[in-house]
Amino acid sequence: MRVARALVEGAPRLILTDGVTAVVAPEERDDPLELLGAESADVAEWSSVDLDTVEFLAPIARPGKIIAVGLNYVDHTLETGFTAPTAPLTFAKYPSSLTGHGSDILVPDAIATQVDYEVELAVVVGRRCGGAEPATIDDIAAYTVSNDVSARDVQFSDGQWTRAKSFDGFTPLGPWLVPAAEVADPHALRLWTTVNGEVLQDDSTASLVFDLPALLAYIGRGTTLEPGDIILTGTPAGAGGFRTPPRYLQHGDVVEVGVDGIGRLRNRILYRSLAEQETA
Amino acid sequence: MRVARALVEGAPRLILTDGVTAVVAPEERDDPLELLGAESADVAEWSSVDLDTVEFLAPIARPGKIIAVGLNYVDHTLETGFTAPTAPLTFAKYPSSLTGHGSDILVPDAIATQVDYEVELAVVVGRRCGGAEPATIDDIAAYTVSNDVSARDVQFSDGQWTRAKSFDGFTPLGPWLVPAAEVADPHALRLWTTVNGEVLQDDSTASLVFDLPALLAYIGRGTTLEPGDIILTGTPAGAGGFRTPPRYLQHGDVVEVGVDGIGRLRNRILYRSLAEQETA
Repeated sequence: MRVARALVEGAPRLILTDGVTAVVAPEERDDPLELLGAESADVAEWSSVDLDTVEFLAPIARPGKIIAVGLNYVDHTLETGFTAPTAPLTFAKYPSSLTGHGSDILVPDAIATQVDYEVELAVVVGRRCGGAEPATIDDIAAYTVSNDVSARDVQFSDGQWTRAKSFDGFTPLGPWLVPAAEVADPHALRLWTTVNGEVLQDDSTASLVFDLPALLAYIGRGTTLEPGDIILTGTPAGAGGFRTPPRYLQHGDVVEVGVDGIGRLRNRILYRSLAEQETA
Repeated sequence: MRVARALVEGAPRLILTDGVTAVVAPEERDDPLELLGAESADVAEWSSVDLDTVEFLAPIARPGKIIAVGLNYVDHTLETGFTAPTAPLTFAKYPSSLTGHGSDILVPDAIATQVDYEVELAVVVGRRCGGAEPATIDDIAAYTVSNDVSARDVQFSDGQWTRAKSFDGFTPLGPWLVPAAEVADPHALRLWTTVNGEVLQDDSTASLVFDLPALLAYIGRGTTLEPGDIILTGTPAGAGGFRTPPRYLQHGDVVEVGVDGIGRLRNRILYRSLAEQETA
């Protein structure tokens, strides 16, 4: 069963879905990792909900950390002009940047104008691991989808990447968690991005430079990973900032990112002052 | 009253202290920000504790984010050879790197050998602020002290700084929170570092390039700050990696960082495999 989180009658609640039907978990069942193991029989009494009517939230409300991996697809590394790293290149995104499927991303246009998409397979850590001990693929509880939204102008003027990738709403995540046990081969998943329906990224996790066991072993070295921590595993070629000419997200663009077999996220980009003009 | 967090009889508890006496808060009073406003009368019934006997923990257990500021003292910027930033240069430290006053920092020496200290005035955000609205100095709930421990070899080979500054134990914080109302002028505080008693950093927050109102306004632009978020405001000149010759922390070194009027943190550096040999 997949676990989503959404506003139901105005309050955040967890939702279990098998892709066909969906039920709302009781209020006190608020740990999405614990719910991943629920069986159909557990939820027989829970009230059903129509996923088309809810407002999705990021399925993990407040992860301890979001660790992102840069330059982890060969074609993307080539298009950026960066040197291919000899070890995973990691950086942070602030958890306050999380948002859900379907939300509008309000870009503060006094700060950033070159906003870009990056589809990524996201991994959710299920238990305390790493630190003095190696983390392994068995420590993954679930997979989900993320869009590593990035303000390229800020990213390259700062040099440090976190701020440019952590504005409010810059980390769509979801729409749900898929239990790791339900994903036969996480290294054979097609992932893609469309903007207003046009396909702009299209590759497979088979193209990861550092695969999931390598990422977990490396990221966990000396760094304890905690339940709910999220790892964004990198994006393939085709991001707008590296196209000729560049194609940044414009006011009103609808960006959709998906990982086949996991899910897809659709978000609309609105530049804040333009959005305010429209509603004034 | 200052608020510390420590292991008391093996369990994490909050402690209130006026610097002379200290009392343990009841188990259910577990929000350090809420306790900052406690009066002496509130705590009359709470049992006293000897601060010399407790094991300190970071006073905020699980902040949503730790935002650090680089190159925010002129003399430090000069010694690094970096170009002085025209706006605050921010980066992230993972909350899992937090540790308390008095702990040993176990450095994974297969990963990092050039470990360095950085004394910093740390700011704790008291309420939701920033995002679409400006954050101000009135959003600060408390001040405390941090050591932004940094593996220079990893920092400069990665380029992105977060991993090198986020190994387990690399963010000593505390020993307690000092309510903002008790700090007359946060821009006139001496801050210093000693290693094995020798003074290696010694400056004043008067030398901050971007002062606290400027940092809050900048960091909160487009980025929501949440209660408990921590801002490390930068380090003055004298860090070991920028000395001639460099002076990295060695196995067994005792590093102490302090901000006068706020507190001081003492931690011992142990390289893990050397520590394991000693106990084998």
